[in-house]
Amino acid sequence: MKRILVLHGPNLNWLGKREPGIYGHFTLAEVDRALGEEAKGLGAELKVLQTNWEGQLVDWIQENAEWAQGILINPGAFTHYSYALRDALASVSLPTVEVHCTNIQAREDFRHESVIAPVCLGQIAGFGLNSYVLGLRALCDALEGKRD
Amino acid sequence: MKRILVLHGPNLNWLGKREPGIYGHFTLAEVDRALGEEAKGLGAELKVLQTNWEGQLVDWIQENAEWAQGILINPGAFTHYSYALRDALASVSLPTVEVHCTNIQAREDFRHESVIAPVCLGQIAGFGLNSYVLGLRALCDALEGKRD
Amino acid sequence: MKRILVLHGPNLNWLGKREPGIYGHFTLAEVDRALGEEAKGLGAELKVLQTNWEGQLVDWIQENAEWAQGILINPGAFTHYSYALRDALASVSLPTVEVHCTNIQAREDFRHESVIAPVCLGQIAGFGLNSYVLGLRALCDALEGKRD
Amino acid sequence: MKRILVLHGPNLNWLGKREPGIYGHFTLAEVDRALGEEAKGLGAELKVLQTNWEGQLVDWIQENAEWAQGILINPGAFTHYSYALRDALASVSLPTVEVHCTNIQAREDFRHESVIAPVCLGQIAGFGLNSYVLGLRALCDALEGKRD
Amino acid sequence: MKRILVLHGPNLNWLGKREPGIYGHFTLAEVDRALGEEAKGLGAELKVLQTNWEGQLVDWIQENAEWAQGILINPGAFTHYSYALRDALASVSLPTVEVHCTNIQAREDFRHESVIAPVCLGQIAGFGLNSYVLGLRALCDALEGKRD
Amino acid sequence: MKRILVLHGPNLNWLGKREPGIYGHFTLAEVDRALGEEAKGLGAELKVLQTNWEGQLVDWIQENAEWAQGILINPGAFTHYSYALRDALASVSLPTVEVHCTNIQAREDFRHESVIAPVCLGQIAGFGLNSYVLGLRALCDALEGKRD
Amino acid sequence: MKRILVLHGPNLNWLGKREPGIYGHFTLAEVDRALGEEAKGLGAELKVLQTNWEGQLVDWIQENAEWAQGILINPGAFTHYSYALRDALASVSLPTVEVHCTNIQAREDFRHESVIAPVCLGQIAGFGLNSYVLGLRALCDALEGKRD
Amino acid sequence: MKRILVLHGPNLNWLGKREPGIYGHFTLAEVDRALGEEAKGLGAELKVLQTNWEGQLVDWIQENAEWAQGILINPGAFTHYSYALRDALASVSLPTVEVHCTNIQAREDFRHESVIAPVCLGQIAGFGLNSYVLGLRALCDALEGKRD
Amino acid sequence: MKRILVLHGPNLNWLGKREPGIYGHFTLAEVDRALGEEAKGLGAELKVLQTNWEGQLVDWIQENAEWAQGILINPGAFTHYSYALRDALASVSLPTVEVHCTNIQAREDFRHESVIAPVCLGQIAGFGLNSYVLGLRALCDALEGKRD
Amino acid sequence: MKRILVLHGPNLNWLGKREPGIYGHFTLAEVDRALGEEAKGLGAELKVLQTNWEGQLVDWIQENAEWAQGILINPGAFTHYSYALRDALASVSLPTVEVHCTNIQAREDFRHESVIAPVCLGQIAGFGLNSYVLGLRALCDALEGKRD
Amino acid sequence: MKRILVLHGPNLNWLGKREPGIYGHFTLAEVDRALGEEAKGLGAELKVLQTNWEGQLVDWIQENAEWAQGILINPGAFTHYSYALRDALASVSLPTVEVHCTNIQAREDFRHESVIAPVCLGQIAGFGLNSYVLGLRALCDALEGKRD
Amino acid sequence: MKRILVLHGPNLNWLGKREPGIYGHFTLAEVDRALGEEAKGLGAELKVLQTNWEGQLVDWIQENAEWAQGILINPGAFTHYSYALRDALASVSLPTVEVHCTNIQAREDFRHESVIAPVCLGQIAGFGLNSYVLGLRALCDALEGKRD
Repeated sequence: MKRILVLHGPNLNWLGKREPGIYGHFTLAEVDRALGEEAKGLGAELKVLQTNWEGQLVDWIQENAEWAQGILINPGAFTHYSYALRDALASVSLPTVEVHCTNIQAREDFRHESVIAPVCLGQIAGFGLNSYVLGLRALCDALEGKRD
Repeated sequence: MKRILVLHGPNLNWLGKREPGIYGHFTLAEVDRALGEEAKGLGAELKVLQTNWEGQLVDWIQENAEWAQGILINPGAFTHYSYALRDALASVSLPTVEVHCTNIQAREDFRHESVIAPVCLGQIAGFGLNSYVLGLRALCDALEGKRD
Repeated sequence: MKRILVLHGPNLNWLGKREPGIYGHFTLAEVDRALGEEAKGLGAELKVLQTNWEGQLVDWIQENAEWAQGILINPGAFTHYSYALRDALASVSLPTVEVHCTNIQAREDFRHESVIAPVCLGQIAGFGLNSYVLGLRALCDALEGKRD
Repeated sequence: MKRILVLHGPNLNWLGKREPGIYGHFTLAEVDRALGEEAKGLGAELKVLQTNWEGQLVDWIQENAEWAQGILINPGAFTHYSYALRDALASVSLPTVEVHCTNIQAREDFRHESVIAPVCLGQIAGFGLNSYVLGLRALCDALEGKRD
Repeated sequence: MKRILVLHGPNLNWLGKREPGIYGHFTLAEVDRALGEEAKGLGAELKVLQTNWEGQLVDWIQENAEWAQGILINPGAFTHYSYALRDALASVSLPTVEVHCTNIQAREDFRHESVIAPVCLGQIAGFGLNSYVLGLRALCDALEGKRD
Repeated sequence: MKRILVLHGPNLNWLGKREPGIYGHFTLAEVDRALGEEAKGLGAELKVLQTNWEGQLVDWIQENAEWAQGILINPGAFTHYSYALRDALASVSLPTVEVHCTNIQAREDFRHESVIAPVCLGQIAGFGLNSYVLGLRALCDALEGKRD
Repeated sequence: MKRILVLHGPNLNWLGKREPGIYGHFTLAEVDRALGEEAKGLGAELKVLQTNWEGQLVDWIQENAEWAQGILINPGAFTHYSYALRDALASVSLPTVEVHCTNIQAREDFRHESVIAPVCLGQIAGFGLNSYVLGLRALCDALEGKRD
Repeated sequence: MKRILVLHGPNLNWLGKREPGIYGHFTLAEVDRALGEEAKGLGAELKVLQTNWEGQLVDWIQENAEWAQGILINPGAFTHYSYALRDALASVSLPTVEVHCTNIQAREDFRHESVIAPVCLGQIAGFGLNSYVLGLRALCDALEGKRD
Repeated sequence: MKRILVLHGPNLNWLGKREPGIYGHFTLAEVDRALGEEAKGLGAELKVLQTNWEGQLVDWIQENAEWAQGILINPGAFTHYSYALRDALASVSLPTVEVHCTNIQAREDFRHESVIAPVCLGQIAGFGLNSYVLGLRALCDALEGKRD
Repeated sequence: MKRILVLHGPNLNWLGKREPGIYGHFTLAEVDRALGEEAKGLGAELKVLQTNWEGQLVDWIQENAEWAQGILINPGAFTHYSYALRDALASVSLPTVEVHCTNIQAREDFRHESVIAPVCLGQIAGFGLNSYVLGLRALCDALEGKRD
Repeated sequence: MKRILVLHGPNLNWLGKREPGIYGHFTLAEVDRALGEEAKGLGAELKVLQTNWEGQLVDWIQENAEWAQGILINPGAFTHYSYALRDALASVSLPTVEVHCTNIQAREDFRHESVIAPVCLGQIAGFGLNSYVLGLRALCDALEGKRD
Repeated sequence: MKRILVLHGPNLNWLGKREPGIYGHFTLAEVDRALGEEAKGLGAELKVLQTNWEGQLVDWIQENAEWAQGILINPGAFTHYSYALRDALASVSLPTVEVHCTNIQAREDFRHESVIAPVCLGQIAGFGLNSYVLGLRALCDALEGKRD
């Protein structure tokens, strides 16, 4: 069993309610359900956490550094300025996949640059709920050394 | 059957030979084989083309605008400056997924910005050969309105 | 009765003690008292909260999204970099007024730009304690569709 | 009685006709009427002037420097480049309040910076006609040393 | 009959005398004569005005907003910084064509950007006196919905 | 007879199909027909070519350098980065007019600057199909030394 | 007799009253008196004009182009953005000296660059009233071809 | 006895585990032990706190503002963007020394600028664990007015 | 025998005709003849190719990757933006020398930066035809490990 | 007697020989002679020194700090980058006048900014040899408190 | 005995006289005396040199490269532009500590960046005379491998 | 005999010792020996000088302006900031060739721009010791008018 830490950053608990014209109508519960189903097929155990607090994300990354074998993270708006989050991910040296519901390079200028990307395996952006599912698959494949 | 145009941009015919420390050891033939297998499971028919010529990419996009229902493209280095390619994709108004073998936001500065992204559904970067497979799945899911 | 959420960001609990040459000699308690009096005349019920924690602000915005009809916020230093706060305000889609005790465009360069402004009705800056009182009036007038 | 010079900059005589989706449907006459009513309650005497000419604004500021005790100004587009206007306001050293009908930091990039702000007490932006009324109150309160 | 307001900005009354190596040897009177002749063929009535004063241009635009059906303007140096002029043109919402005797993108850096262009139909630059004649034809064609 | 080389750059063969909300509903065939008619009145012989290939444009410019007396070019997206095209035009030293269907300075930032402009006589932008017709007239007038 | 046009730009009529800690305590009348005395020794006739209006400066430059043999100008805040003023000076091609009471490169960033300088003989800045006197001498010496 | 507040920012609890090639092999416990020993020689009492949460740092600074006579802080990644932390330090007006284990100006570009530095006495960077010990000594010397 | 691929980029087939004031009066044939003579003395076999097509250059680099032991290239205007060409050179990992007839750092700003340089051994610029001859010698010397 | 240190920076010993089209035909000896004559009328004693060495200038400024009452300096190219020279002038706190033979703001971009200006009384630029003479007069007048 | 080269850059011989409000009242002799005392406790032998000449610093670094085991340097204003100094330090590959009396990141913008830092162990800034003493200790500790 | 001044800038006397992984293992003596041999074949007489002092380079350039017919210079780090050196080279108007052992455009950002290049014939970079030999040949060929 692959052990995966799934982290949802700020405002993602509002998926479905939050500007649905931009983020879609699905909820975070639906994201987690879809991830759970995908996880079964991939032989993965998930620990799923959401917070609006930057410090909480850093804490969780450190606390799960032993348990987890990989991290799937949607850093929300922290993507664009949280060097503390970046340093935390760099510290634990776990394979990490960054996902976004929207295609961030096609939105406002401040969303084009990710300060998180340089410490991740890869980035998937723009496929709504599916970004998470694809990201989980990408992470599990990478852990198995498949197709890289 | 979903009809997908798969476009490989400049230097991708050299995958396997090209800086393998960066791009990996798989070849373009292996990419295409993996795409072919994935396509079967997804009910997709692929037309796969590679060129080092920017103009050729624009032509192929126009020539296949009727036939194709979606485009999967790795624009290679054109990602960062080819407004002609961007305009071509904007012209045909087909759902398009942009893929990269490497995590472009984690490399040299000039690779952080994609001028193609604003006319695409989404972007998948950093998973080697798997970026293509995930991208094909993302595109097919989008065509079926699944999980977005 | 109009229900207004009043949010004080980081370091505002130190008003009066904090660089009084810049921020003035009044305390946050005096701000809240003045807001309370103004609220009576305006037919508004206030919920007033202060925190130095970005995540706490995001939580409060979400938790009060049902109760509140408008938000009056002094984001303090978060004004200049907290995209998480901006996204939270955008999510709840409530009329929001941004206030600052000091005239931020007349201070250091990094204080000239507000990343919060694009998701607010308007901004009032430079009138010390009065920025709050004027901001409350502006918000209540907007809720009543008065003079806009 | 407090003597206040009210200055409307370029194109504000077209309020109501001018891009009402952006600036609102009220006219400058309505602005002046609302200011007049507010002035009564505040014990203020107003001199209200509008011009599309930068030099005229500078002249008026100088000519009223003795008479006026404070200035309420909407510099219109001069906000973003008229250093001559800024120098005039700095010369007369009167307490000045800058108002804008729209929330300028939420519009085009060139409207984010005010070259006038560094010589003003404060700025009120985004509340349509009400920006003026709030600005007048802010100015009168400041002249009385109230709540700053 | 199409009613066209023709506006010449600062220093254009000196055409012929003004740096003829750059602007050519023709005078403003010759420009107006050529425009008059072209107007006959196009069924247009012209009102032609020149000023070195920014505020005067704004006034004329407003005063002729009812009469005119289109505006032909050479803003001279105001092209590069007069947001007041831009706002005036945006206010009246008339089809406007911007002309320049010289090819401004081929001259000094500060002449490359036009702050007027975003509120115009189009721009013609570099053909000396002929820029005006072509601009008039472009404007009349647009008013008739011809060839756009 | 004046001999004019007319060059259409990338994606212009898709006029009519390509984002008609931006580029209009006319086709390239209609452009060429209108040019043909205008040419008759102007005593001009046209050679009209379209390609999506940057290198092809450079070749055609060189191959027609003897035959042609002037060039009318819509460089499409090459406008903003093709220094090769610019160098080719500089090499042949023929009078060249640059045209654009849309008003490029009123669109995305990257379209504001033309790297082609410094080697052209002038630029006409924003008049749809008419930009070509006006451009042809501008070029022929320039060849005859008329009104410059 | 050398005929010199002396132009004072915006806010200079307030010298003495205007931020004397920055601009000094002398008045414009004292400047003009000092210039008059210096002129006698230099064999120069002066025409001295002040305005807060950019358009007025352009008009005066044109109207005196025949009479004047040189221009002494303190453009005030226009120094930093008035391309119209620059074009006017370029048009008349008279030897021009630019003076400033304060040392503009030692003040705020926006005062470091002069858009007027490229069309002037030279610049004298920082010597208060004496900047004018020195400037007049520099101009007269240049007209006599002395010590350049 | 001098009372010193020692603050460790985000990810510093992982010293020793965290990218030891960059940060060294010592742990935070070892840092604190070394600080404790140095404190004895310097006659200082320490209160040592670590957190990954920006808001917590601000709270601690305020809560210890009465008790502490000086602050020794390694702000970690907050160094580069936390204006809230900067404002907190400015509010309490205590002598503050900023330390970094690594030589931040010799690393990635985003680490070159400290937004904290302008409100500190000084900065010590690049000496690993010793940065703390030297920083404590610098702070105590400053409190005693020694050698500044 | 050393096998060298010599590549001439866009517009170089026009040497002699192309802006001779800048590029000199020699033709590409003369360049190739001089290279041929130099090659004899250096024991080198040359394959010399010219194209205006970026894609063609990429193809030739790939097709000759086995045969060639080194590349001598004048990328023409591609120097400044063709990341595809850069990637192609990086792919084949052959020692490459970049040459320019003109001293590119002494010309327009856009010619100062080479995006090709980071994947080359060195650069020779400014010596007209001789740049090629010196470049060939530099490349052959490098292949023999002479004087580096 | 006023004691003035006159410093000529790098390459000024080549005046007359050095690019006379830009710097004029006069020599440094002629500059010094003209300064000597002017000094007599102004009651000033001069010590005149020239060097091409930055360190020498700093030494001379320090060595003459007691003797000199003012400094007249043409820093040559050091104007644009020598912060060491700037610090030296700031250290001695003597009234300093900066002169340039050419109008530096009308030349290459790198010559527009003076890092020396912020520590000087004022700047005189563009009058050839006369810049020195005027500068000496400006300095002596300032020392006597005349006309500032 | 550890052999340490102590280098004082430009204007540091004026400590005590030089802007004491910024740099403090201590002299360079006092710095050297304090260093001498500290050196005794640390078992270090010092060679102390000061110069205002960049080339002299480079020479001294090279001449002492054999003798010295470490370098303590205050580069003064050279910190911000002397790449020659940086290259010299990089050449000799000795452990180097950079010190500044003032907190350079809290002063003018041009003092925020050190071009020297990337070739040093670390930086100590802001503690007046004590910066040197702490720097010496940091260097000696590093040479002994203590606490890094 | 052609008379050539060969100038080695700062730190080049340390070639061989200086970061040999970057600059190579050859010494300056070996460079000079190779230059001497090449000079024989080219009919050139060399005067070879090295210094770490900017002022010394300027002096030598002036002192040899009569004797020398050309200059071969490796300005070392002065390449990137010494406008004094640039002005000296411009003053003497001798044909100058700039050489670098390393390929400067492929190294750190600050090494990409040469402020010396605009006053040189050409630049050769990246060939180690051979850059000098090639540079000497380039210079001699240019003096003979060969192959440019």
